[in-house]
Amino acid sequence: MADVVLFEFLHAEMVAELGARDPDPGPGGQKRSLSVLEGTGFRVGQALGERLPRETFREELDVLKFLCRDLWVAVFQKQMDGLCTNHQGTYVLQDNSFPLLIPMALGLQYLEDAPKFLAFTCGLLRGTLRTLGFQSLVTSSVATLPACKFQVEIRKS
Amino acid sequence: MADVVLFEFLHAEMVAELGARDPDPGPGGQKRSLSVLEGTGFRVGQALGERLPRETFREELDVLKFLCRDLWVAVFQKQMDGLCTNHQGTYVLQDNSFPLLIPMALGLQYLEDAPKFLAFTCGLLRGTLRTLGFQSLVTSSVATLPACKFQVEIRKS
Repeated sequence: MADVVLFEFLHAEMVAELGARDPDPGPGGQKRSLSVLEGTGFRVGQALGERLPRETFREELDVLKFLCRDLWVAVFQKQMDGLCTNHQGTYVLQDNSFPLLIPMALGLQYLEDAPKFLAFTCGLLRGTLRTLGFQSLVTSSVATLPACKFQVEIRKS
Repeated sequence: MADVVLFEFLHAEMVAELGARDPDPGPGGQKRSLSVLEGTGFRVGQALGERLPRETFREELDVLKFLCRDLWVAVFQKQMDGLCTNHQGTYVLQDNSFPLLIPMALGLQYLEDAPKFLAFTCGLLRGTLRTLGFQSLVTSSVATLPACKFQVEIRKS
């Protein structure tokens, strides 16, 4: 189905366009691009959070399971591969083959470009959590392409 | 299904972000935004054209029918409502309820903003046609929201 790849194509074009438009190619300029991508993901996540069929969450962990299962299937047509927690509000979500990193894993891009391809999704997770009533801080890391981890810290209000 | 609306949300954010980033809010700045949106649509259309199951096209009209049916279903989960031609290389594709204009039709935006929400799709049609071997010029027009028309002129090579 073409609509499955449509989001991936559009995301890749958005990353390229924001990078090309940045007047400052240095670290400051890249930081601005990442911030825009993260903000875009946040607003899309907020809107998606309103649309996804929602169950009643008894525990914080249930919300994270919802992201790993329902949100990931809606956006990437697959479930997250792993979920760990320190039981103190920090969660690590592991995707062993993250779709937005696969073109890079085929050698079309380089590892140092990985943050650009993860910023939108960090925002997506943060925005969905916001709609579900949770303030959070979401960061990402890559060790081996195309695997990646998203670390979610739930902020107590 | 959330993935159906995912493209629409991301498209809306891209339109908003490009508008907000433009240093020149006048007609020149808007022209630049429209050109970027059209170019983004073009590259997504080129890539989608490679992915869509393709049949053998005996006539130019068959290619336009392919856009109205296969491309539209892949991107918007519906077929185009009408297709007219002057039999001299110009085609008018009519969508009576274009998904990317529906939020505006509900009063969230205004008619003068319509071109911003059509530029990407003009590029999408032009890019798909390019992959299928046709040079074209694609323009759009709106009379009553959320209906719109795309005019495709096939350029003879």
